[in-house]
Amino acid sequence: MTISMYKSSVPIFVQFLTSLSALLDKAAAFAEAKKVDPSVLLNTRLAPDMFPLARQVRAATDHAVNACARLAGVDLPTFSNSEASIPELKDRIARTIEFVKSVKPAQIDGSEDKAIKITFPSGATRDFTGQSLLLNNSLPNFYFHCTTAYDILRHCGLDLGKRDFMGTPVSL
Amino acid sequence: MTISMYKSSVPIFVQFLTSLSALLDKAAAFAEAKKVDPSVLLNTRLAPDMFPLARQVRAATDHAVNACARLAGVDLPTFSNSEASIPELKDRIARTIEFVKSVKPAQIDGSEDKAIKITFPSGATRDFTGQSLLLNNSLPNFYFHCTTAYDILRHCGLDLGKRDFMGTPVSL
Repeated sequence: MTISMYKSSVPIFVQFLTSLSALLDKAAAFAEAKKVDPSVLLNTRLAPDMFPLARQVRAATDHAVNACARLAGVDLPTFSNSEASIPELKDRIARTIEFVKSVKPAQIDGSEDKAIKITFPSGATRDFTGQSLLLNNSLPNFYFHCTTAYDILRHCGLDLGKRDFMGTPVSL
Repeated sequence: MTISMYKSSVPIFVQFLTSLSALLDKAAAFAEAKKVDPSVLLNTRLAPDMFPLARQVRAATDHAVNACARLAGVDLPTFSNSEASIPELKDRIARTIEFVKSVKPAQIDGSEDKAIKITFPSGATRDFTGQSLLLNNSLPNFYFHCTTAYDILRHCGLDLGKRDFMGTPVSL
């Protein structure tokens, strides 16, 4: 079993998106127990100019979706980008998992040298290979937003441990 | 250029350890400008039962060192594990970068199915393959601690952006 672009992407995204969704369940339970509106948690930021929790979750799904769609050369699913409640965010995560699972190994494997040009919202463009997109950009950004979502919830007082972040490896 | 265990580990660790070291430079400059002891930053935690910044940095280096040493089957460098100042932590990061760079592609490539048993401080053991160790354990943990170090500094008020976390890809 050799390492591959597929094994380095889809099962990893599914593992950590699943744990991210479970973190939101714990956030909902925490909010109910503390009698606070869940939006308080979803709007919490670690610094005034950082994304709040809801946006961290959306960003994590974006990096998973974008990586898989660009490597496989398929259309991206569209999201409303206005998901503001825990159920809406969990639905976005579920749709992301469904999408990345729909991409098969043959569509991603061999994409190491594929030329991928990304146009950022600013209009700037950047050229990647499939491999540099996945290893140097998508995965670190994905982990950044998953970790920061966890960090925000820990900072809010949720009783979480590293295991909640790590989740369970999946075989695909 | 195909994806490999080496390309998925050593250059990635070097990229993000280098940016972690640069974050500590910015922390030192911030402390000086604000006339606070750098140890205030190094002892900051996002939750009472999370590691403070200094320990997040040490944990990031641990995951990089452990992954490379175990995949390559070489001895781990030893650290004092008492690094408590910014210069000491930067020295630990520099030694980590030096170590992981000393491991060559031929020592890591092909380690996908290598059986690796890890004994945790609790005495519990867990069996990995080289691939599951790297993809499901070492990299997510490494990114977790690098991100949380960044998040702590942002929470302390440092003027940082995602680019400070991402650093610059390296060719090895």
